[in-house]
Amino acid sequence: MDQRIKEKIIEIARDNEYMRNLGLEFLQIETGYIRGRMPVKPAIINPYGSVHGGALYALADIMAGLTACTGGTFVSTVNGHMSYLKPGMNTAYITCEAKVLHAGKKIITVTVALYNDDEVMLENGTFIFSVLENRSFL
Amino acid sequence: MDQRIKEKIIEIARDNEYMRNLGLEFLQIETGYIRGRMPVKPAIINPYGSVHGGALYALADIMAGLTACTGGTFVSTVNGHMSYLKPGMNTAYITCEAKVLHAGKKIITVTVALYNDDEVMLENGTFIFSVLENRSFL
Amino acid sequence: MDQRIKEKIIEIARDNEYMRNLGLEFLQIETGYIRGRMPVKPAIINPYGSVHGGALYALADIMAGLTACTGGTFVSTVNGHMSYLKPGMNTAYITCEAKVLHAGKKIITVTVALYNDDEVMLENGTFIFSVLENRSFL
Amino acid sequence: MDQRIKEKIIEIARDNEYMRNLGLEFLQIETGYIRGRMPVKPAIINPYGSVHGGALYALADIMAGLTACTGGTFVSTVNGHMSYLKPGMNTAYITCEAKVLHAGKKIITVTVALYNDDEVMLENGTFIFSVLENRSFL
Repeated sequence: MDQRIKEKIIEIARDNEYMRNLGLEFLQIETGYIRGRMPVKPAIINPYGSVHGGALYALADIMAGLTACTGGTFVSTVNGHMSYLKPGMNTAYITCEAKVLHAGKKIITVTVALYNDDEVMLENGTFIFSVLENRSFL
Repeated sequence: MDQRIKEKIIEIARDNEYMRNLGLEFLQIETGYIRGRMPVKPAIINPYGSVHGGALYALADIMAGLTACTGGTFVSTVNGHMSYLKPGMNTAYITCEAKVLHAGKKIITVTVALYNDDEVMLENGTFIFSVLENRSFL
Repeated sequence: MDQRIKEKIIEIARDNEYMRNLGLEFLQIETGYIRGRMPVKPAIINPYGSVHGGALYALADIMAGLTACTGGTFVSTVNGHMSYLKPGMNTAYITCEAKVLHAGKKIITVTVALYNDDEVMLENGTFIFSVLENRSFL
Repeated sequence: MDQRIKEKIIEIARDNEYMRNLGLEFLQIETGYIRGRMPVKPAIINPYGSVHGGALYALADIMAGLTACTGGTFVSTVNGHMSYLKPGMNTAYITCEAKVLHAGKKIITVTVALYNDDEVMLENGTFIFSVLENRSFL
């Protein structure tokens, strides 16, 4: 993939306070594919003792959005959908895998799957993005 | 509504670090209905200059989940779905209105709508919860 | 609203075999709003004795799509989401109310609610459409 | 898998008028997995010339629901979600692959993917089912 896009993705995640606070780390960045993770800290634990659904969604939304940008244009989120399969407990990290399912001229659809340290799938989701035609990602 | 449930909801939001960090405030708590808000701080702004989709979802998810609990039992989130209509910009607060659409014995469905200071709807969503039968909310 | 758009909607529903087979009837057509209904026939009953989820979705999808077209351009469906609250039983018709929640230049979001003869809500859903910019509805 | 469950699934699809009208055929039935297909007939073509979204959803919903039943209990649909990636055109069949993503005691989550004759994915979706605890599938 274009290394400038890769560097831009890393830069965005580093410079944005919201993403930095979540402690996001990238494990792999390819065109149409990103794998990354978020450490499980007390600040994201819900009253049930598992990772808060909002924090899981935030991880998924960010990774999906950046994956949608790997084609080289900025996007805006149209729709997010997340299914919660198992609670995120007893895991040091939540790992997220985001894949472009289809990239049209106007709409990009990305699926995400979240895993615990034992690679058990905890959530899966779908995000729909609208391509911002005149805004190059670089 | 049962005042003990109302107090418990306020207590949960105050005692949970994740909810406290978002700065959630309640405006109205009724059986099957909660209206609350979240202040817009730099920590939740995305690289585009608007409120981050993850923070909007977190607000919606929490308010929907607590609304599902107003019937008196704990719940777990099965599914969350959010449509982004307009970016959250130039607004001091994001206000969330959550309503129980249907409360079955096993499944509770809640709709949410998020608004800016001018009462323009920014997002709407649907959350599905599974009732934890043996866990009273009190 | 533009009467030619109204007539075109009625014509589409009459000329399309799939819509005609469902027996769709319009009760009200306005800009950004359509209310219509579908008779409950044996051909759409599921093995549980209630209206099949696919038929309910088809009604919602069609009404939502035509509502998205009331602004004057053709659309394509990006995403459909439906929550099933109660089974459709002991009702002669399923009535559908579709409303445009937000109409952007590129994306139109429509919510739908389905009711039985007693005006009890059976399903609610959200549909996202992409505007086909160069294809006028007329 | 239990052959009686397999036979029951085939029997349900044969005996239900709605499913029979769609012309559903099974290609593979396993515990937690079904692959089947639907012929593309004029009766399911939309005004744009491609397969109607409602018919695609019906195929997905039925296959997902039957897949959720392969564990041996009846289910009811809580929620369905479908993303439309490409129009279904120039294809004799729409093939559907449904997989149980997670089967809990109360909730079963199934993902579906629909393909054209060239094995290009046209739609993907997620369906959530509630287990009807006291109703064995057999």
